[in-house]
Amino acid sequence: MSNSRTALVLIETQNDFLSPEGKLNSLVKDVVDGNNFKQNVNEAIAAARQAGIPVYFVPIQFSKNHVEVGNSPYGILKVVKDHNAFEKGTWGAQLYDEIDVQEEDIIVEGKSSISAFSGTDLDHILRSNGVDKVILGGFLSHVCVNATMTDAYDKGYKVVTLTDAVATAGEDAQKQVIDHIYPMFSTPMDVKTFIGSITQN
Amino acid sequence: MSNSRTALVLIETQNDFLSPEGKLNSLVKDVVDGNNFKQNVNEAIAAARQAGIPVYFVPIQFSKNHVEVGNSPYGILKVVKDHNAFEKGTWGAQLYDEIDVQEEDIIVEGKSSISAFSGTDLDHILRSNGVDKVILGGFLSHVCVNATMTDAYDKGYKVVTLTDAVATAGEDAQKQVIDHIYPMFSTPMDVKTFIGSITQN
Amino acid sequence: MSNSRTALVLIETQNDFLSPEGKLNSLVKDVVDGNNFKQNVNEAIAAARQAGIPVYFVPIQFSKNHVEVGNSPYGILKVVKDHNAFEKGTWGAQLYDEIDVQEEDIIVEGKSSISAFSGTDLDHILRSNGVDKVILGGFLSHVCVNATMTDAYDKGYKVVTLTDAVATAGEDAQKQVIDHIYPMFSTPMDVKTFIGSITQN
Amino acid sequence: MSNSRTALVLIETQNDFLSPEGKLNSLVKDVVDGNNFKQNVNEAIAAARQAGIPVYFVPIQFSKNHVEVGNSPYGILKVVKDHNAFEKGTWGAQLYDEIDVQEEDIIVEGKSSISAFSGTDLDHILRSNGVDKVILGGFLSHVCVNATMTDAYDKGYKVVTLTDAVATAGEDAQKQVIDHIYPMFSTPMDVKTFIGSITQN
Repeated sequence: MSNSRTALVLIETQNDFLSPEGKLNSLVKDVVDGNNFKQNVNEAIAAARQAGIPVYFVPIQFSKNHVEVGNSPYGILKVVKDHNAFEKGTWGAQLYDEIDVQEEDIIVEGKSSISAFSGTDLDHILRSNGVDKVILGGFLSHVCVNATMTDAYDKGYKVVTLTDAVATAGEDAQKQVIDHIYPMFSTPMDVKTFIGSITQN
Repeated sequence: MSNSRTALVLIETQNDFLSPEGKLNSLVKDVVDGNNFKQNVNEAIAAARQAGIPVYFVPIQFSKNHVEVGNSPYGILKVVKDHNAFEKGTWGAQLYDEIDVQEEDIIVEGKSSISAFSGTDLDHILRSNGVDKVILGGFLSHVCVNATMTDAYDKGYKVVTLTDAVATAGEDAQKQVIDHIYPMFSTPMDVKTFIGSITQN
Repeated sequence: MSNSRTALVLIETQNDFLSPEGKLNSLVKDVVDGNNFKQNVNEAIAAARQAGIPVYFVPIQFSKNHVEVGNSPYGILKVVKDHNAFEKGTWGAQLYDEIDVQEEDIIVEGKSSISAFSGTDLDHILRSNGVDKVILGGFLSHVCVNATMTDAYDKGYKVVTLTDAVATAGEDAQKQVIDHIYPMFSTPMDVKTFIGSITQN
Repeated sequence: MSNSRTALVLIETQNDFLSPEGKLNSLVKDVVDGNNFKQNVNEAIAAARQAGIPVYFVPIQFSKNHVEVGNSPYGILKVVKDHNAFEKGTWGAQLYDEIDVQEEDIIVEGKSSISAFSGTDLDHILRSNGVDKVILGGFLSHVCVNATMTDAYDKGYKVVTLTDAVATAGEDAQKQVIDHIYPMFSTPMDVKTFIGSITQN
């Protein structure tokens, strides 16, 4: 694995998911605790920094009244709007402070839909910096991480999914997407294996 | 449901999936037979025509040697390349003739990746024709239909998924994606319900 | 002209272009003054508000060291990086305060390339809010406004360009792009004509 | 210039532009003849083949009735529709046979709008094959070539424009776009300089 063209991309590691007081924490709490999500994400980050791999964070954010989703949202973005989650400028939209963010990390703004590429500058930044391989972690395993993975695959990136550094609502959804869909569009691996792969060379 | 801004979009209803001699037929045969896929798709098409809803077909196709996927494909497109499936100009890439295609239907070309929007003119054609709602059917339920659904959602379309006019490899993958993921990004319904919804008005 | 599906989209009306102390003000000053840009933009805004047309601002912004453009930028973004213009969090990146921005306006973030659609959520927000017609003004007439116009056209929007509410470096470039290119992808009109068109109905 | 990551991309070298009987030949004839377009394009192709640079052709095509542009097109696509140009399956849409096309070249299908990336698989194919630099030629200098250049720039490609292997309607439009816009988003050079650059290494 060539480190110089690789980036670690972490999706929606924000208070509204990760903090006990977060508006959608109850959705993901079981999987987050069950697979040791926080520690795994931080270990992946530490190893990436060590290996010279840049760390990208892609938070989701909405303006007041969630204007980005219009007046008749449906599906998952209706849930987000109904909970008034991830509102720009609020605590819930901030990156969760137990995940290690440093000043040199790249914060990609503008995500207010599903794929981390959709409506953001992620692709442009990655390309301008010569990245052709992305390592994905974050939320939700079978929603935004899933769509980001497919989108990255369609854009010609090599994709790795970190199976114990993603989380979602319920063990069943978590297991199913990892078993059935991740292998279609990525090389799934746990954080330990990922760390091994980037420190060998 | 307003019919004038709606389109039925059918993905990869081609010989290599649907014909008994198709190169990937064995993958999908169980689900296709089990959920009465062919008849359901044709009933959806007939009802759409009756209601003035245009029918779009989005086949997947590759040049010789599958140059579109490069020399080191992985994941699902490696499977496709290894089977030499859907090669442009071959019988396997042709639309399966037991699915009813008419001259006025729109055949969207250029699909050689996962989402039906990726690398095709689908979005442009839909928009130029005032469509803001897409009804999705075809292959594979948890791969291309799934990615097309998410992409359509991110592009602001209203999305309906036809739960018994999609198929994939194995009942488990089929059930899981319909249960866990389709409701996040679409209104899932069976063909009978869809037909009812477009003929009531 | 139906107002309910229309949006006024103003590109890069920021201090680094518009303020006398702005880092790139000298580039655009002649055209800005010559065509009465500021007053025209404000009149277009006032008329849009009156007609119920939402106002979008799309500033361009870069992280420290302009990481979004990589280490070997070229062309116009090299100029921007060399001047260290539009850095996030600095005064130069802020919207110029003599252009009328209100709290209900939509600020689209994430622009760090040329088209206002590239790397931003603009398309998603417009679509989610039912907009299919965009009225374009701002900077630079033959760079970002030009690319945004073409991109909007390719995405199926109806496009209007406000010929005296756009500006660029030099009268010649300004005139040429308006004469030769704007009519290919938009209905060009001056602000007075635009205002007439939205108040007649 | 690294040749292994470079591609020559030629836009709309089709009968309806290049053949004397082509429906839009009269538009471009003066510039085509004046700058020795055909010979230059063929020399660029020959040198590219020699240097191991793949050659891509991106024709524009429309279904019957130009359904891709809808019922109320405007701007340049209205002109195309009014002339019934580039209809799929007709002679006018075929690649002009005095431009050297070989079997190993890549024909990118699906273009029915302005940028060669819009609605086509071009980006996916380039990326899957490791290309990060594109050399652009073809039609129209200030329309599709221009938009393709900007789009390639926004997607992070290095871009070269071949100033005497592009053509458009009128010397003035040709000169203005090359002078004012090409340097913003590309390294413009004539074919002779391009050939020198790829044969030196």
